[in-house]
Amino acid sequence: MDQVIEQFQFERVLSHDPRTKLVYILGRIQDQHAIVSFEKARYSDSELPQLTTRTQRPLDDANENNIYGWGMANVRLDAADTHIKTIYPATELHIRKYEHQQRRMIVETPALYEQITYPYIKSVPAERIQWVINILNGTSEADRVIYRQGNIKDSKDKDEEEKKEEEEEDEFVILPDMKWDGTKESLYWVAIAMRDDILSLRSLNRTHLDLLKKIRDTAYRLAKERYDMDKDLLRLFIHYQPSYYHFHVHITAISFADAPGVVAGQAHLLDTVIDNIELYNDYYQRATLPFTIGERHPLFLAYQQQESSITTSHSS
Amino acid sequence: MDQVIEQFQFERVLSHDPRTKLVYILGRIQDQHAIVSFEKARYSDSELPQLTTRTQRPLDDANENNIYGWGMANVRLDAADTHIKTIYPATELHIRKYEHQQRRMIVETPALYEQITYPYIKSVPAERIQWVINILNGTSEADRVIYRQGNIKDSKDKDEEEKKEEEEEDEFVILPDMKWDGTKESLYWVAIAMRDDILSLRSLNRTHLDLLKKIRDTAYRLAKERYDMDKDLLRLFIHYQPSYYHFHVHITAISFADAPGVVAGQAHLLDTVIDNIELYNDYYQRATLPFTIGERHPLFLAYQQQESSITTSHSS
Repeated sequence: MDQVIEQFQFERVLSHDPRTKLVYILGRIQDQHAIVSFEKARYSDSELPQLTTRTQRPLDDANENNIYGWGMANVRLDAADTHIKTIYPATELHIRKYEHQQRRMIVETPALYEQITYPYIKSVPAERIQWVINILNGTSEADRVIYRQGNIKDSKDKDEEEKKEEEEEDEFVILPDMKWDGTKESLYWVAIAMRDDILSLRSLNRTHLDLLKKIRDTAYRLAKERYDMDKDLLRLFIHYQPSYYHFHVHITAISFADAPGVVAGQAHLLDTVIDNIELYNDYYQRATLPFTIGERHPLFLAYQQQESSITTSHSS
Repeated sequence: MDQVIEQFQFERVLSHDPRTKLVYILGRIQDQHAIVSFEKARYSDSELPQLTTRTQRPLDDANENNIYGWGMANVRLDAADTHIKTIYPATELHIRKYEHQQRRMIVETPALYEQITYPYIKSVPAERIQWVINILNGTSEADRVIYRQGNIKDSKDKDEEEKKEEEEEDEFVILPDMKWDGTKESLYWVAIAMRDDILSLRSLNRTHLDLLKKIRDTAYRLAKERYDMDKDLLRLFIHYQPSYYHFHVHITAISFADAPGVVAGQAHLLDTVIDNIELYNDYYQRATLPFTIGERHPLFLAYQQQESSITTSHSS
C-alpha cells in the first residue's frame, strides 16, 4: 500500500465532500488506474479534553465580535490524522462508482410508471438480486440474520404455493445492513420479505397491511430487546426507487440523522405508508411519486429518451 | 480570542458529530462559562493534487486485500487544519443550543393534533414571528428579497380585507435562507406567504392549490433565470413541524443533499403535497403525520405529559 501512495501520479478529482472532508482521487501507476481516498479522522474521545491545549497560538485570521470569536489554527494530535484507502488497479466500474454524479428529480405519475419505470424494472437481470435470494434461503449471511420466519416464496411455483397457508404472505428476515457500523446510535437493519411478488412501494395495497405491520412491530420488539431502544427512537422507511426490486424496509436509529437515503424524495416512512393505505386502498397506484436519481442511472436515461421523443413528436 | 483558548478549562463535551468532524466543548474561564468549537478544515482545491506526496509513509495499521488497501497516516498541509470558534462568556441559552439533544418520533393522528399540537401552536407567543412580519412588510431584509408580490395580509382585519381582490390569497416573498452559503450547489431559499391564516401543512386543502403552484412555478423560473438551474435540480419542501407557524416553503438544490431538515419525518415534498390535495381535498386533515422532534422541545414535553396522564388514568 505504501508503494501505491509513493508511485501515484495525480490525474483528477473524482468526488469531494467538503462537509465530511472526504475526497476520492484518480491517478495512474505506470499504465494502470489507481484510486486513493483521503478522509480526515474524527476526533477520538480521549483527544477532546486536550484540544485547546494542543491548539497552536496565535490563531490565523482571528476575528472577534462581542462574545463571539472565530479563526483557524493547527491542532496537533498524537494519532494519525487521515484515513486513506487505495484501489489498485482500478477499473472503469470503480471510477464510475466514486465519480460525482448529479442527482435529478423525476416526478413519476402513474402513467409514467407504466410507460417507463415498469418496463425498466422488468429489464433488470434477475441475477442482480441473487444475493437477496441467498440471504432468504439461508445460503449466505445466515450467521448475520437477526430474525427469520418462514422460507423463501417464489410466486412462479404457484401450484405448490397454493397448498401452503396464507400466513406465509407476511414472512420476512431482518439482518444488519452492510452500512451499519455496529453502534446503537447508527443502528441500520433491513427487513426483507420472503415473498417475491411485491416490486416496490407502487405495488402496495391493503392486502399487504399485515406484512407491513408485522415488520414494524418486530423491528420495535428487537430494538427494545437488544438495545433497550424505544420505538420513538427508530425511523422505519421504504425507498422509492429502491436499489433492488424485492420488497424490503429500512430500519434505522433516528440519531443516525444522515443515514444514506433518508431524505424526502427517496425515503417514505413506514407509518405514513400504512396510514395512506388504510385511508385509501389504491393510494400508491394513484399517487404521483417524485424521486431523485443519478443522471447516469439507466432509469434516468430512459426518462430522458422518452422526453426527447415526446419533444420530437410534438415538433414534427 | 487567543486568550480564551489559553485560559480555557475543559469541563465537558456538549456535542460531537464524527461524520463532519465537529465538536462543541464547554469549559470555564475563571467563574464564567466558555464554549469552544473545533471543526477539521475541508481540503482546499489547491491541496488535492498534493495529497499523496504529503502523506507520511509508512502508513499506520496498513491492510491489504486483493486490489484494496486501507490505513491511517499524517498528511501535512500548509494551511491551518482546524476551524475554531469561541463564545465567551457563554450563557445557559448558548449551552442548551449546542448541547446534543436526542430526537424522537411522534406519530401525530388528527385527534392528537387537536388535543396537543394545536393548543401548543396557539400558545406560542406572537412575538416569535415578528421577524417574519418584518420581512413581509419590508422593514427588514428588504435588500435580500429576491421576489415580492403583494403586501402582508392580516386575517384579523377582515373588513378591510374583504374589499380586496381574491388574488391576494396567493401572494408571497422569496428570499435567501440564512443558512445559504451563496453557492449554486447549496442553493437554499425560502418562500413565505403573505397571508397569515395557514398554520402549517395540517391546514392545507384545495383552496390553497393556487398559492402552492405559484410558489413552485416562481421558484423554478427564478432558479433558471439566476443560476440556469433546471427544475429537476431543485427540491421544494414543507416542514412538519415547521420551526415557525406562518406558512413557508423551502427551496433547495438537490445537490445540497444534507440540507438541514430534508429528511423523511420532517420534509414533505411540495409536489407530493399538491398531488395529495388534488386527489383528496382533506388529505392533511385526515392523515397521520409522523414527525421527529428534540426531546427537550416544549411540544415533545406536552406529548409526554399527555401520555403519562393517559397511563395514570388507565392504571387508576
